[in-house]
Amino acid sequence: MNIKGFKFSAVEAAIKKPGRLDLALIVSETPAAVAGVYTTNAVKAAPVLLDQERTKKGACRAIVVNSGNANACTGPVGLADARETTRLVADGVGSAEEEVLVCSTGVIGVPLPMERMRAGIPPLVRGLGTGTFDDVARAIMTTDTFPKMEVRTGKAGGMEYTVAGIAKGAGMIMPNMATMLAFIVTDAAVDPTWLRTVFAAGVERSFNAITVDGDTSTNDTALIMANGAAGNPVLSAGSDDAAEFVRLLDEVLLALAKLIVKDGEGATKFVEITVKGARSDADAKRAAMAVANSCLVKTAFFGQDANWGRIFAAVGYSGAEVDPDRTELFFDDVQMVRAGVFTGGDAEARGTEILKKREFSVTVDLHLGEGVSTVYTSDLSYDYVKINADYRT
Amino acid sequence: MNIKGFKFSAVEAAIKKPGRLDLALIVSETPAAVAGVYTTNAVKAAPVLLDQERTKKGACRAIVVNSGNANACTGPVGLADARETTRLVADGVGSAEEEVLVCSTGVIGVPLPMERMRAGIPPLVRGLGTGTFDDVARAIMTTDTFPKMEVRTGKAGGMEYTVAGIAKGAGMIMPNMATMLAFIVTDAAVDPTWLRTVFAAGVERSFNAITVDGDTSTNDTALIMANGAAGNPVLSAGSDDAAEFVRLLDEVLLALAKLIVKDGEGATKFVEITVKGARSDADAKRAAMAVANSCLVKTAFFGQDANWGRIFAAVGYSGAEVDPDRTELFFDDVQMVRAGVFTGGDAEARGTEILKKREFSVTVDLHLGEGVSTVYTSDLSYDYVKINADYRT
Repeated sequence: MNIKGFKFSAVEAAIKKPGRLDLALIVSETPAAVAGVYTTNAVKAAPVLLDQERTKKGACRAIVVNSGNANACTGPVGLADARETTRLVADGVGSAEEEVLVCSTGVIGVPLPMERMRAGIPPLVRGLGTGTFDDVARAIMTTDTFPKMEVRTGKAGGMEYTVAGIAKGAGMIMPNMATMLAFIVTDAAVDPTWLRTVFAAGVERSFNAITVDGDTSTNDTALIMANGAAGNPVLSAGSDDAAEFVRLLDEVLLALAKLIVKDGEGATKFVEITVKGARSDADAKRAAMAVANSCLVKTAFFGQDANWGRIFAAVGYSGAEVDPDRTELFFDDVQMVRAGVFTGGDAEARGTEILKKREFSVTVDLHLGEGVSTVYTSDLSYDYVKINADYRT
Repeated sequence: MNIKGFKFSAVEAAIKKPGRLDLALIVSETPAAVAGVYTTNAVKAAPVLLDQERTKKGACRAIVVNSGNANACTGPVGLADARETTRLVADGVGSAEEEVLVCSTGVIGVPLPMERMRAGIPPLVRGLGTGTFDDVARAIMTTDTFPKMEVRTGKAGGMEYTVAGIAKGAGMIMPNMATMLAFIVTDAAVDPTWLRTVFAAGVERSFNAITVDGDTSTNDTALIMANGAAGNPVLSAGSDDAAEFVRLLDEVLLALAKLIVKDGEGATKFVEITVKGARSDADAKRAAMAVANSCLVKTAFFGQDANWGRIFAAVGYSGAEVDPDRTELFFDDVQMVRAGVFTGGDAEARGTEILKKREFSVTVDLHLGEGVSTVYTSDLSYDYVKINADYRT
């Protein structure tokens, strides 16, 4: 894989346990168009506050990421530490401090170990060109069991370009181990304003359509850099080949999002939940998320129990407009509920067979309008409780 | 315990497993003032729809309750079955059908076994006067491990009266076993309009301030009957002794609500969560409920992990107005967070000791206003997953 004009590096800076990469760097040789989507949590970690400001300018040179410490709930000291981290990187790669973004994931409430960051950044910068994007994918892992990368190639104005993305764990997986992080790099030339629009829309359908436990972390961040090294005419709204770029970007985002759910803590099931026929797309998403986040629904998935009643009840309390007498519910293609009433017969047995699969879908049709939304979730298993209860003991 | 003018009965009607009471009746000898609070779920079981209409009149004679079948998602047949149940009871006790209320709890989506109801109601009516309120408390249990009753006595206008209440399980405890039910009876004479006001306010601070898994069932119902057999001057807004009645009623409601949480599925902890200093009481409740319903917070409670970062994050995503730099957080009286930053020192060790207790409190002070709310919750244990995943297997 070649993503023109990007260099990568990852080192062990002893922020995580020994023997694991925990500090990584993505650098574009030239200023790249940049866009970011951030956690909606009112409690935002220092690097999120910094990046939100800096991505407004629409261009950046580098992203530095550490795992093992979230630099969240660290007050003014945390913000100063985040700034210093970007300054040290900027000095190393020869850019302005404002052109460097920073992301952190790990323990909340503990100051970033700056002596280790200061010691780690010089070898990190020296490693540029020898490291790979895959190294970065490994360095940002916390409780993820495998690194997550997706790559697509396309053409714009006859020039080939690559869209590559990496991501790490959904939800607040371990005690104090917070955050979903995703980094997309492309050598396509893309108008920064349009990039912001299509990236935000893509994230809404992917990273914002998955849930493991419904907890929104203080550090969630998705960033995209587009440096134009492919030499294509700049892609923007309505330009030739813009649609293909959006399609490829969406594919990368959705594939990464699905990998995060599949690697969700303790997950034994991957479930696609679609609500359609809602009054609005927002209503559909509200209902789908209520189902995806219900502990009772998720334990039923784990128990392989075709328990449509819990799903029906979750749709009912979601806040979406619902007319129970019109609602239909399916497991894959097996209809469990028609006009709000159990279909009976062999539906129970057929539904139970579907729940035994590793992956299946739940579809709820509200028959009230055109609103539709699909979200992705996992089940709630013994291992989820174990992973999240036993971390420090 | 004597609650003047009320009679009780409970029988085995073979709706639940053999050997368990599952059909119960509460009758007032004279028409009683009545008030009800119902599930906010858009998917409401047939008995809820019926009772909502009938309690509007402000008076009733009887409440019939079955466990083992929720009569939810049963369509027009379910509504006809609920009506027939009340008609049979009305014929037996000599009242109008509209003066009888009905509640159901149990499996969703399966028609009420009417032949068993028809067979059970005559012995149920014959048993009136021999049964006790405690029998009713047992008959409404599903996965509850103990019956729940609270009694207080007071005086109004020199006449002694009793306020007694029973309740069953919070949340949707077992697959398809839905519902929190509570029934309060008092022989005090109470104005029906005022009764509605004080009962709704009391439920808001008790049954609506507890959560086990955040799932709102299709059948949740709390009812109160006040028959005036104590002979006191009618209590109403501003009347003598009204304040004492409200205090006793609130005590009964809150005590029952706490018993429900303590009997929550798999619970090993009872946690009181208070958010104060919020912009409004509604904001405080939003934040407290987000903490109480967070799977990550609840697994940390189970793991006895003083994980204030997860609580902080849940407050952050609750939708309540939050200024992280002002927020304080306590486990019992140990301050973990000051001005949004970990207090450090021995707080970690002291907080961990508190988490080892069977009962403790979490207090978050937002320092933004006067809003305050207290909610009660349990932890999320292996047994929660086991109970909710393994029911049918």
